[in-house]
Amino acid sequence: MTERESQIVLGLDPDPSALWPGMADRGHELSAETAPAMRAAAAVRAHCTALIDAAGPACVAVKPQLARFEVLGAPGWGALEAVVAHAHEAGLLVIADGKRGDIDVSARAYAQALMGAVDTPFGSVRGLDADMVTVNPLMGADAVEPLIATARESGAPKGHTAGVLVLVRTSNPGAADIEDLELAGGGTVWERIAALVDMLGSDGVGESGLSDVGAVVGATAPEHLARARELMPHAVFLLPGVGAQGGRVADLAPAFAPGRAGGLIAASRSIAGAHVKSGRDPRDSACAEAERLRALAWSLT
Amino acid sequence: MTERESQIVLGLDPDPSALWPGMADRGHELSAETAPAMRAAAAVRAHCTALIDAAGPACVAVKPQLARFEVLGAPGWGALEAVVAHAHEAGLLVIADGKRGDIDVSARAYAQALMGAVDTPFGSVRGLDADMVTVNPLMGADAVEPLIATARESGAPKGHTAGVLVLVRTSNPGAADIEDLELAGGGTVWERIAALVDMLGSDGVGESGLSDVGAVVGATAPEHLARARELMPHAVFLLPGVGAQGGRVADLAPAFAPGRAGGLIAASRSIAGAHVKSGRDPRDSACAEAERLRALAWSLT
Repeated sequence: MTERESQIVLGLDPDPSALWPGMADRGHELSAETAPAMRAAAAVRAHCTALIDAAGPACVAVKPQLARFEVLGAPGWGALEAVVAHAHEAGLLVIADGKRGDIDVSARAYAQALMGAVDTPFGSVRGLDADMVTVNPLMGADAVEPLIATARESGAPKGHTAGVLVLVRTSNPGAADIEDLELAGGGTVWERIAALVDMLGSDGVGESGLSDVGAVVGATAPEHLARARELMPHAVFLLPGVGAQGGRVADLAPAFAPGRAGGLIAASRSIAGAHVKSGRDPRDSACAEAERLRALAWSLT
Repeated sequence: MTERESQIVLGLDPDPSALWPGMADRGHELSAETAPAMRAAAAVRAHCTALIDAAGPACVAVKPQLARFEVLGAPGWGALEAVVAHAHEAGLLVIADGKRGDIDVSARAYAQALMGAVDTPFGSVRGLDADMVTVNPLMGADAVEPLIATARESGAPKGHTAGVLVLVRTSNPGAADIEDLELAGGGTVWERIAALVDMLGSDGVGESGLSDVGAVVGATAPEHLARARELMPHAVFLLPGVGAQGGRVADLAPAFAPGRAGGLIAASRSIAGAHVKSGRDPRDSACAEAERLRALAWSLT
């Protein structure tokens, strides 16, 4: 973050029917006998690569939304792997946004798939090589712990900390349905999850004062940010919802109480779709919007 | 269910380093230059196919655990697609066990990936073609609704009902951390989720009296089953945790209060690993264990 003076996370949510102009060409170049999924995956890969090249320099990480790649099946997963590699080459961290959560043996498999490797009779097979993953804590601590363990193992050889980002208070209207329920013992469900995050992350606090167990706290509910920071003093907050979902950078100050690295500001549609508003070239528009967000956030924190 | 006299769901959780004897041959047949992930995916596919052939006739559905395929990247997703097709050819329903849950646009993408199709500039690309999916409701109703909508659209042309299975009270020890929290308004988090499931499923109740919005209720906590049934009178219950996790078929009676189709009993390791206990052939052992469970459940319900 200090190197790049950026706290911006570039969301990658490619919709195959709404890619940047010209990106479908990469699919059209393939022979007409090629399966539509293969051609669409080539176009999605071209789109994400162009977006990373345009907006990446103003960002610190990318956040591919896994569903958008899974819609294209095996070719989609292949495009995801290529996009992750491209982001790493561009010096960006990768946050695999899959919101996984399962019983221990399955959580271990997700950890292997996204951040680790699996043993096979044919040798070890490396996973997606993400630096961070989003995790759903509904099923409790034992659904989260295998992902933390794998993040810790996988981060060391890379020379930087890998980690997990646990859903605490999300940016969607439905967050009120379960996350905001009041508990008999006081506080809400999300506050209890926040306490769990703080507990799980206590072994992972580095010299920076930040832990490798972070939290997803929607930028659309800034009234919760100060309380979230109080409950999770060491967590890195991933802050989705800026832009298209209505969140504003200026409201995010509490996230940055432990320093500039305390918050990661995720923006997807506001960057990838900046040209729709500007009427200019998608690359230039994405570059300008990412840089605007970067400068704004850095100046406010 | 009536046709097959079975309520058994065959869990597919292939660990590439612990496949049935001989299954790795399918990977060894490929040239040594083939990537390990491709070879392992061929072995995983062979294992799942053999398991379906052996135990499938005693079952009504298969439940692939998606993480186990994602560990092998694009080839793993390809193996998953092949396994789903094989299960359908064998007359089995497919429950994609991914426990997804995300904001509306991402939930729609998961729905397309698992049960629907996505438009691309190269034509429509069909997803995994699952009949049911497991869903994580932490993020609220708007994270679940797109999956219900897609299930309803996708089920009709198949001539049977597709649906979703929402995590309500899971089978793992960590379920106590969040799901069991007591609410200020009375009841627990999981009971509130159960009420949400009943509400979301009210439009989807068919002639059988069962809804296309079901619930995952762990077989390891039978004390919750009667209460879960009271709160969700129309939900099909997916009951994981029988066998390896300690759940017993005899304790599941309340699930079947609305009739034999009220419960789906998921068994994975107890079937795929039956030969470890029996010391006999894996195929024969899996077949015998699935048939034992089938007959036991059918006789008790």
